[in-house]
Amino acid sequence: MARKLHLNAFLMSTGHHEASWRLPESDPHAGTSLAHFTRLAQTAERGKLDSVFFADSPVLWGSVARRPSSAVEPTVLLAALAAATHRIGLIATASTSYNSPYNLARRFASIDHLSGGRAGWNVVTTAGADAARNFGLDDQPLHRYRYERAAEFLDVAFKLWDSWDDDAVLADKAAGVWGDDSRVRAVDHSGPHFSVRGPLDIPRSPQGHPVIVQAGSSEDGKDLAARYAEAVFTAQQTLEEAQAFYADLKARTAAAGRDPDSIKILPGIVPVIGGTEAEARRRERELDALIRPEYARDELARTLRVAPEDLPLDRELPPDLPGEDEIEGAKSRYTLIVDLARRERLTVRRLIGRLGGGRGHRTVAGTPEQIADALESWSGAWAADGFNIMPAALPSGLEEFVDHVVPILQARGLFRTEYEGSTLREHYGLARPATQLAEV
Amino acid sequence: MARKLHLNAFLMSTGHHEASWRLPESDPHAGTSLAHFTRLAQTAERGKLDSVFFADSPVLWGSVARRPSSAVEPTVLLAALAAATHRIGLIATASTSYNSPYNLARRFASIDHLSGGRAGWNVVTTAGADAARNFGLDDQPLHRYRYERAAEFLDVAFKLWDSWDDDAVLADKAAGVWGDDSRVRAVDHSGPHFSVRGPLDIPRSPQGHPVIVQAGSSEDGKDLAARYAEAVFTAQQTLEEAQAFYADLKARTAAAGRDPDSIKILPGIVPVIGGTEAEARRRERELDALIRPEYARDELARTLRVAPEDLPLDRELPPDLPGEDEIEGAKSRYTLIVDLARRERLTVRRLIGRLGGGRGHRTVAGTPEQIADALESWSGAWAADGFNIMPAALPSGLEEFVDHVVPILQARGLFRTEYEGSTLREHYGLARPATQLAEV
Repeated sequence: MARKLHLNAFLMSTGHHEASWRLPESDPHAGTSLAHFTRLAQTAERGKLDSVFFADSPVLWGSVARRPSSAVEPTVLLAALAAATHRIGLIATASTSYNSPYNLARRFASIDHLSGGRAGWNVVTTAGADAARNFGLDDQPLHRYRYERAAEFLDVAFKLWDSWDDDAVLADKAAGVWGDDSRVRAVDHSGPHFSVRGPLDIPRSPQGHPVIVQAGSSEDGKDLAARYAEAVFTAQQTLEEAQAFYADLKARTAAAGRDPDSIKILPGIVPVIGGTEAEARRRERELDALIRPEYARDELARTLRVAPEDLPLDRELPPDLPGEDEIEGAKSRYTLIVDLARRERLTVRRLIGRLGGGRGHRTVAGTPEQIADALESWSGAWAADGFNIMPAALPSGLEEFVDHVVPILQARGLFRTEYEGSTLREHYGLARPATQLAEV
Repeated sequence: MARKLHLNAFLMSTGHHEASWRLPESDPHAGTSLAHFTRLAQTAERGKLDSVFFADSPVLWGSVARRPSSAVEPTVLLAALAAATHRIGLIATASTSYNSPYNLARRFASIDHLSGGRAGWNVVTTAGADAARNFGLDDQPLHRYRYERAAEFLDVAFKLWDSWDDDAVLADKAAGVWGDDSRVRAVDHSGPHFSVRGPLDIPRSPQGHPVIVQAGSSEDGKDLAARYAEAVFTAQQTLEEAQAFYADLKARTAAAGRDPDSIKILPGIVPVIGGTEAEARRRERELDALIRPEYARDELARTLRVAPEDLPLDRELPPDLPGEDEIEGAKSRYTLIVDLARRERLTVRRLIGRLGGGRGHRTVAGTPEQIADALESWSGAWAADGFNIMPAALPSGLEEFVDHVVPILQARGLFRTEYEGSTLREHYGLARPATQLAEV
């Protein structure tokens, strides 16, 4: 029997292609438009996708000239979409470096309640000095420190989510007893990063815990995923790399004492869909032609820690770039970019085109059949449990995927034709966690 | 011409009466139910109310046996209700003591965008050691420190909301220029409590700033309101006290260099509505009879800083309570309770009944005409610009108010029959703030 896929729609305001906002279809104010995000989430739900997902960093990145560099904060967006959809999972990114565990655990539990058990949290540690400077720091904390804090943050969040037993609310109107105080416990956490008394001020949520997602592929990131994550979003350019990542992370998960099937690995894919392969490739070229390379080069230079003038557009990357060990933020992204450029001997201009189309994720331009083939082949080769679908342009890219690729996957028996459960955990086939036992 | 009223619906899960959850109509899980809050917000919108409002404290208060002591976090609730309503204003409480200004300013700007300009923020400093212990502190910060931090928090938030000019988004698809970098500025705030670089990562929101609400009536609270607040929720038991508070706060606002009309003062009122006055009073008594006084006494004892056994149910309060000066949190609520008990020589049991019905706010039991009279008389006597309507039981209390009291107010020319604007600022007759000038 073919392995069923899990499909998540990773949504940026006007799409993942950095020039997508210049297309005639695009609303340049999409990033702050509830109507826009509602249409996208409802489209994904029509396609029976597992979930929609929103990235986040609490900082304005670079120049606003280049593209819509901003959007609404994703936890409040999830809540709005909870009211506008019924079944699809709702995943938002939030930082463990720049939040407090009580507030964030509470917000995700609230979204899980409001959505009837559809919340997921993509746990990030937030790279970059610019973000740190919005929170009273002069520079970002060290990579390892951020990951240690993230692990403790998650421990505290789990304790808070488990501070109410599932049956703590008695609702005994006749006796006048609403809750059972013996089934609600302080957590009394005290650690290097956090002291949190608890309990949380909200009953345990439908999923127990929101689904925990992780997306960093550095060594620290993979170790965090192996301990905590239930879904992993990852950028993998080649089948071999994806297979190696998949095997590595499943093994780390087993080594952490968890069932390898309890972590779903979803590489990103940017589908560019056409009626023919030639049409798809033409659309891809048209999008790339809308990129203004001088903007993109500035960002590439920042990522590579070099000056923009050290990156002539029609030459390859300079040979003397730092190693990943010397990078303090977004390590895996750094390595992915450098490896891609070296492997394919790309000029800076062509590298910018590749990154601008999907920010380092795998782009597949072709017919719906070809897209479906690409998904099936990786899944069958144990490189993926599903995919993070990253439409280049929105809303069209999502609508085409749902209308033309999903039916093929369904006809092949690779994807559900109806939701079988009502929670995000059920969509991903993940168990609902029991509460940790009271230590009293 | 009669002064038009502003009406805000202050919504607790099953109502402000602490025993309301025991009524047959009540959903004991209302506090986490999107369907419940959607029904309430849509009812308030049907009544053309200015806004709905949700209180908050990031802590579980006391025993869960007593009543539904928990609800979803209100900023995410606002976002969900933004998707479920069209015109009504949406106000949530959030703490300046236990949030960072970048995150909170961003979240309110996001809700303002998602709602098309309907967001309001009730600024609180959060009293109590229990809340502090959820955020790494052993005890609450001093009252004055909390208010100093609140003022600086608001200064930072205003800077962040003004970090994009209104016309910063050019959306020039032809030229490939999305935003004007010269119209987006770092804020570079550095003060005793916060260092925040900015700019915010989201364009300026429809209202410029969300409407700023304040609800503390201590000296520090009134001074904060005079400087920053555009609406004030307050508990006033008598006309004379309300007039004095109104005159005082309008004068403080003028002294702070602001137009006194730019701050709307809304005392709370708990309407208990019946077809006759006798029926209303019977309903009030039936609700009071559902209170279990032993639970309420524990909370009263905590508020008064005495032991529960020092509060025999059928005696008046002990004479030797501390003065407000000695209280470090919720000063104005403390004084209100003590003054009410002393003025009316209430036994602890009767005080608990009064507080249980509306937590110290003015309760008016009567016919719809009598409720309307009560609102009109205070407004006409310069004791109020409008009211914070606090239904004892939900959803019935709000539905009765909308269906029976609002039409009387409309017939008297005291309340709008249709929304005249689309933003919360427009509902309250508040100006949209210009951006602070760039200092470059």
